[in-house]
Amino acid sequence: MTLNLKDYVASYPDFPEPGVLFRDISPLLENGAAYHQATNQIVDYAKQLNVDMVVGPEARGFIVGCPVAYDLNIGFAPARKKGKLPGQTVKATYGLEYGESSLYLHDDAIKPGQRVLVTDDLLATGGTIAATIQLVEDLGGVVAGTAFFVELMDLKGRDQIKGYDILSLMQY
Amino acid sequence: MTLNLKDYVASYPDFPEPGVLFRDISPLLENGAAYHQATNQIVDYAKQLNVDMVVGPEARGFIVGCPVAYDLNIGFAPARKKGKLPGQTVKATYGLEYGESSLYLHDDAIKPGQRVLVTDDLLATGGTIAATIQLVEDLGGVVAGTAFFVELMDLKGRDQIKGYDILSLMQY
Repeated sequence: MTLNLKDYVASYPDFPEPGVLFRDISPLLENGAAYHQATNQIVDYAKQLNVDMVVGPEARGFIVGCPVAYDLNIGFAPARKKGKLPGQTVKATYGLEYGESSLYLHDDAIKPGQRVLVTDDLLATGGTIAATIQLVEDLGGVVAGTAFFVELMDLKGRDQIKGYDILSLMQY
Repeated sequence: MTLNLKDYVASYPDFPEPGVLFRDISPLLENGAAYHQATNQIVDYAKQLNVDMVVGPEARGFIVGCPVAYDLNIGFAPARKKGKLPGQTVKATYGLEYGESSLYLHDDAIKPGQRVLVTDDLLATGGTIAATIQLVEDLGGVVAGTAFFVELMDLKGRDQIKGYDILSLMQY
């Protein structure tokens, strides 16, 4: 039986701020069959792309990417916020509505030429994922594709990552 | 072939502050075979405990717990920091070296009587995991066990969670 994944997404008006309709994937994660089905779709996509590594940004990128890496017996590299990674890192900065933020990746996380799947729960404005892509490419990795549980079409995130392959399981 | 997982842990003196020897599991995560083996040990443990759900605290608890939930076809509930979860939540506060912090769980994340595995990457002072256990129990869940990649014995985290079953894959 194939589940309709949208049955497992909750919608919260005015979160985290007025005017935003927040799509919450918690019900999907909390339902074993739904989480498994969603992950399997991304596993199948990653197999087609023949990827060597998965990279996801803190924190929900881990929820999407880690089971995919585990299932495929490949590594997972977390892209983290400031102050979280010891040692040598590369950095990418992206704009937020107010100010900016940065993501970091260990400088040996990706080997040149490795084929990488970049994962996050949500494709919204695309800033986070564009920064994650930049980190992978700074290390010589090849972004084979990007995968998301949810894509918010109005925010045009895919315009930020033109030329990259995108799998989004649900569109709003 | 069984890997020695400690070969995939890096040690950084004086991170994140002077006097702390930081054990970094990034090399383990980035190596597909090592991450798979570590996760499989926790999957086997979870099977013995007959768990219904996995709960892990933000953010590295997701890296440990999500593949376990995926493999067992059960749900994962993220315990998150302030301002991350919309809707109704329960809250647990724990002490840090300076001040305190809180974790939150959706109030419908766990059903009364569900058997829960609590995961994190590291058992250090035990504050984070004790707070996560409190959240699960506040919702009527039964903490069947706790699982960690690394345990720092000197910090006596297991004294904070006396009476709970603990699996730690590596001890320092």
